[in-house]
Amino acid sequence: MYPIPVAILGATGAVGQRFVSLLEQHPMFQVAALAASDRSEGKTYAEACRWILSDPMPAWAREMTLLPCHPQAMPEAKIVFSALPSEQAKIVEPAFAAAGFAVFSNASAFRREPDVPLLLPEVNADHVHLVRHQRLVRGWSGCIVTNPNCTSSGLTVALKALDNAFGLKRVFAVSLQALSGAGYPGVPSLDILDNVIPYINGEEEKVEWEPRKMLGQLKDGSIQVSTAAFSAHTNRVAVSDGHTVCASVELNEPVTPAQAAHVLSAYQAPEAARGLPSAPDPVIVVREESDRPQPRLDRFTGKGMTTVIGRVRPDPLFTLKFVVLSHNTIRGAAGGSIYNAEVLVRERLL
Amino acid sequence: MYPIPVAILGATGAVGQRFVSLLEQHPMFQVAALAASDRSEGKTYAEACRWILSDPMPAWAREMTLLPCHPQAMPEAKIVFSALPSEQAKIVEPAFAAAGFAVFSNASAFRREPDVPLLLPEVNADHVHLVRHQRLVRGWSGCIVTNPNCTSSGLTVALKALDNAFGLKRVFAVSLQALSGAGYPGVPSLDILDNVIPYINGEEEKVEWEPRKMLGQLKDGSIQVSTAAFSAHTNRVAVSDGHTVCASVELNEPVTPAQAAHVLSAYQAPEAARGLPSAPDPVIVVREESDRPQPRLDRFTGKGMTTVIGRVRPDPLFTLKFVVLSHNTIRGAAGGSIYNAEVLVRERLL
Amino acid sequence: MYPIPVAILGATGAVGQRFVSLLEQHPMFQVAALAASDRSEGKTYAEACRWILSDPMPAWAREMTLLPCHPQAMPEAKIVFSALPSEQAKIVEPAFAAAGFAVFSNASAFRREPDVPLLLPEVNADHVHLVRHQRLVRGWSGCIVTNPNCTSSGLTVALKALDNAFGLKRVFAVSLQALSGAGYPGVPSLDILDNVIPYINGEEEKVEWEPRKMLGQLKDGSIQVSTAAFSAHTNRVAVSDGHTVCASVELNEPVTPAQAAHVLSAYQAPEAARGLPSAPDPVIVVREESDRPQPRLDRFTGKGMTTVIGRVRPDPLFTLKFVVLSHNTIRGAAGGSIYNAEVLVRERLL
Amino acid sequence: MYPIPVAILGATGAVGQRFVSLLEQHPMFQVAALAASDRSEGKTYAEACRWILSDPMPAWAREMTLLPCHPQAMPEAKIVFSALPSEQAKIVEPAFAAAGFAVFSNASAFRREPDVPLLLPEVNADHVHLVRHQRLVRGWSGCIVTNPNCTSSGLTVALKALDNAFGLKRVFAVSLQALSGAGYPGVPSLDILDNVIPYINGEEEKVEWEPRKMLGQLKDGSIQVSTAAFSAHTNRVAVSDGHTVCASVELNEPVTPAQAAHVLSAYQAPEAARGLPSAPDPVIVVREESDRPQPRLDRFTGKGMTTVIGRVRPDPLFTLKFVVLSHNTIRGAAGGSIYNAEVLVRERLL
Repeated sequence: MYPIPVAILGATGAVGQRFVSLLEQHPMFQVAALAASDRSEGKTYAEACRWILSDPMPAWAREMTLLPCHPQAMPEAKIVFSALPSEQAKIVEPAFAAAGFAVFSNASAFRREPDVPLLLPEVNADHVHLVRHQRLVRGWSGCIVTNPNCTSSGLTVALKALDNAFGLKRVFAVSLQALSGAGYPGVPSLDILDNVIPYINGEEEKVEWEPRKMLGQLKDGSIQVSTAAFSAHTNRVAVSDGHTVCASVELNEPVTPAQAAHVLSAYQAPEAARGLPSAPDPVIVVREESDRPQPRLDRFTGKGMTTVIGRVRPDPLFTLKFVVLSHNTIRGAAGGSIYNAEVLVRERLL
Repeated sequence: MYPIPVAILGATGAVGQRFVSLLEQHPMFQVAALAASDRSEGKTYAEACRWILSDPMPAWAREMTLLPCHPQAMPEAKIVFSALPSEQAKIVEPAFAAAGFAVFSNASAFRREPDVPLLLPEVNADHVHLVRHQRLVRGWSGCIVTNPNCTSSGLTVALKALDNAFGLKRVFAVSLQALSGAGYPGVPSLDILDNVIPYINGEEEKVEWEPRKMLGQLKDGSIQVSTAAFSAHTNRVAVSDGHTVCASVELNEPVTPAQAAHVLSAYQAPEAARGLPSAPDPVIVVREESDRPQPRLDRFTGKGMTTVIGRVRPDPLFTLKFVVLSHNTIRGAAGGSIYNAEVLVRERLL
Repeated sequence: MYPIPVAILGATGAVGQRFVSLLEQHPMFQVAALAASDRSEGKTYAEACRWILSDPMPAWAREMTLLPCHPQAMPEAKIVFSALPSEQAKIVEPAFAAAGFAVFSNASAFRREPDVPLLLPEVNADHVHLVRHQRLVRGWSGCIVTNPNCTSSGLTVALKALDNAFGLKRVFAVSLQALSGAGYPGVPSLDILDNVIPYINGEEEKVEWEPRKMLGQLKDGSIQVSTAAFSAHTNRVAVSDGHTVCASVELNEPVTPAQAAHVLSAYQAPEAARGLPSAPDPVIVVREESDRPQPRLDRFTGKGMTTVIGRVRPDPLFTLKFVVLSHNTIRGAAGGSIYNAEVLVRERLL
Repeated sequence: MYPIPVAILGATGAVGQRFVSLLEQHPMFQVAALAASDRSEGKTYAEACRWILSDPMPAWAREMTLLPCHPQAMPEAKIVFSALPSEQAKIVEPAFAAAGFAVFSNASAFRREPDVPLLLPEVNADHVHLVRHQRLVRGWSGCIVTNPNCTSSGLTVALKALDNAFGLKRVFAVSLQALSGAGYPGVPSLDILDNVIPYINGEEEKVEWEPRKMLGQLKDGSIQVSTAAFSAHTNRVAVSDGHTVCASVELNEPVTPAQAAHVLSAYQAPEAARGLPSAPDPVIVVREESDRPQPRLDRFTGKGMTTVIGRVRPDPLFTLKFVVLSHNTIRGAAGGSIYNAEVLVRERLL
């Protein structure tokens, strides 16, 4: 059965590179195809890709020839990891799903579709079963599974633990987001040196909605979106990797910081999401120092899959304030997609 | 009458340097004395000060000999601008006030005293009259007037305009603060390169309380603190100067972004605070671009005294969201103190 | 006679913006036309330009409509400041010169032409007379005058002073160059945060040759290039503006650092280059502190036109070592071009 | 025989932390004692140390109680790794050596002593035998072995390979050094954001002398220092880890870049330095891309012990130009000391 051959779409970009790096020696998956824009087609990966990670480009990837993003170009692959931009994903991903591939998408294009799982296995692994319904409705032999935008990822893990224990009502979330979230070349250096950009196009709408779908319940083939209400401000700061979110939450009952910290630390992923190669271990780390989490120091906790929380304290207006840190291109993008694929395989939905 | 001789306490630090720079060719004040810690006493300013501003150190300051921070050392000065740390301010500033000096303090030591004005002239110029009461109570011939912490400054200007027009109930504020707010040497470079520090010691308490005093009413020799309620998260980011604050506010009535933007742009300082050398002109600038204000581009608006606001938009939980930018060592520190002194002089309270 | 109407080609880029900013209230020149790429044509400057300077965009520029880069589009202009990339400059600038415009170019396209002045007025103002020869040879009623690449600018000023006094033989130069030298968007932030890029395409060749032409002698209508020999390494660092160059020089005679510092400080521009609106005043500042010049602190010396030198000390292999700082988009680009135009006008060569 | 118990002096600083991190699971050494300044004595390591590495603090270190820096305090240790500042090292390290400890020092205090090895095993592993002479002369049962300053480390590896093959005459070296080289708290963030500091106290003298000792020959109990001559400029830039050096070298014979690249890539450490746990593998990597090495991408090559070289090209004045990158707190400090200790143990000199 293993390794399952997989392809990466958009392999030369910031998230594509993380896929290549994380799939090096993966126990379940083996990269059979790398695809990129037409401009790069036919070049080797080493020629076409300006590698920006500090781990070296894996040797097996260097000499792979870049294919076009078409299903016919990579017949051997069963799973497709897509790091395509949303506009392109809208067209390309359904073509792959129709052709029988299981597509794991980082784009926002299909996240709001009622029959498409928005999957964060630590939170809602059961939502993966929505693909049965999707296949029925769309007549696809493959499927599309999406992961949330990188800012919502860590935040939703924290909120899920609190929602389970105390009931979640309202959330204020202000992000300080890393540059890699904008892709490569992304943010010009002259725009961010000695600066903050208090705006990320389309991001606040995503943070105000995506957690609600993930915190929702799957019933009779559809998701009942959570009634929790959100307000988000999103900012870009001079950090390479790791999104920091300042959150204030209103819960259904009064909770002390110590109770909340205990609940967060003790949070367990649903059974279906445990013990997989990319499962975060632990799901959440709660730091007790007054000035943590910090992106440079904490982003690689649990190989970049763990959600790191700190400064849990009372909120004067709501119930609690805290800070959440999550690696945006690992837990929030490539690592998250791979984890989603692991769940799909385990649940025999491939 | 002019120029009035003034002294600067803590003249070699980050805020002290701003005082020196801003008092260059001031129409009302002339620097008669520079004082610093015992370690520097007797050295010239050029010898003792590691100048960190991009404007060159004024020639007149270079050769001034640093004095100790004692009232007897500088008999000619009438006004004292204090950039001392809070611990030292607690002891030194009352000594000066008792000796007849009008002390304008950047420290937090006396901000919460009921008889000490916490002054932001654009907002509460009338609070300066509290010094009459202070002199009575304490038997001082001088006085202490404080300015708020640098994060509260710009935020409170914005809130005052909205409070006047619509009534302010609740505020969420998350700051992205500049390095100069921590003084010099302040934040080690290894702590902030490619990083965010989601904690500033004591800052959140200040942001949650100081605006309430400034938005309060002076009645019968005391301040009735505003009932508006605050929740703050404060963060340090890799910016040299200029504090950015993401704010969500709940108002007493529904307000459109356009109405709010109009009220903010049109806001006028109280009569007593207008037309002075350091008065911001205009008090508030509202930017219409989707990605402004930004510290590098907007911090010097109105010579660093203007509050710059942008992204005024509806808030899903409260009434409005917006971003506030203010220069932390000019409007939020040295420039603010000088403005306070100008008000005191005009109101014949020297 | 004044103001002379001028046009700016490539007005929306990093150097184009500096032109707009520096020509605000210029005593000799008035901007009559702004031109940019076809993509921006017809838009207002405010619409098309992502302004990156901390001084606000001048009001008069905001509403100007962007023209195409053709001579017929701007008949009223007499002088053209070109911030075009080299490829485009190669075609567009001769068209303007043929049509009677005096073109002041920042591109490298024509710097090596024997009949084109490579002008740094503090160094070789007399080379401007080469345009007489150029007009003869090419049959142009206008002309092209180039300025050197931004790294050579400050370095050559320092070398000229030493060459005059002691004779220059060999130069090692290693640059630490600012991001604005790469234009906008230029260097991606992910490439330079916590990083150095030890390579700038084509730059070392320029630094090894351009100073030789500027240090050369104009004789009988041609430049005799200096025999001084150069080796250059060029690096990009996380600085917004201001190029730093570490130089080791071999002179014809032994020289003490004090002698050299004296000669540098006392250096005067040629008569023809003095007293003009953009003339650096002084030409050179020599800092005596052990750790200066520094870009953030010294780049605006003399409004960004002065060359700042420090750390003059003996070199174990050659004669002297020192550090040179120069503002790359002012002295090294837009300000330099404007200064060149001022010389041309004074010399009645328009 | 193994593990040999070791102590770390100055364990809480930037280099001390690297020692703790690198000695986690070392096959030959086990940390038996951590020592720090008197201020920290008696606290646990977790309490006293502001950990700045992105790898978490090892669990075994957290609860160790910090000892004073005295030989009597740690009788069980045989080897002492010293990350003490030079002033303190001058007094403390001889006390340890006299008491029988083998001291591996990062300080400059003893580097120039004729009987103290300045050891870079890839270059001069045989110099370790100088300790026999040292013990004789000083009557110590222990010894002091030093490693070079962090900038000289990688540079000297490159120079050794070239010296062996072609004979080395003269070297120009200009560094762009990382912040961690200044320790913690080290460089204030306000000094380096958007800036370069073209000065590091005492560093140029070290870079101009230390490589000469390491390239020298051990004969009859003393080192004949190399006759190669050096000129150095040293700069601080906004990089966390990894020193970049631009070098121009004059060799005894003409050499093509291809020949030099071959010699560098093929360079082998002396027999005595091969195959040890900290031996760099390979000693040198030569990158062929035009813009490498870069600190963020290449500093961890060979676990931070490999010297990375790029841009090997002809030099117009000397023979060759190239760029050298080396991890300053691993190869240039803690990792280098540990490697030195491994050599001493293998050579049965403990």
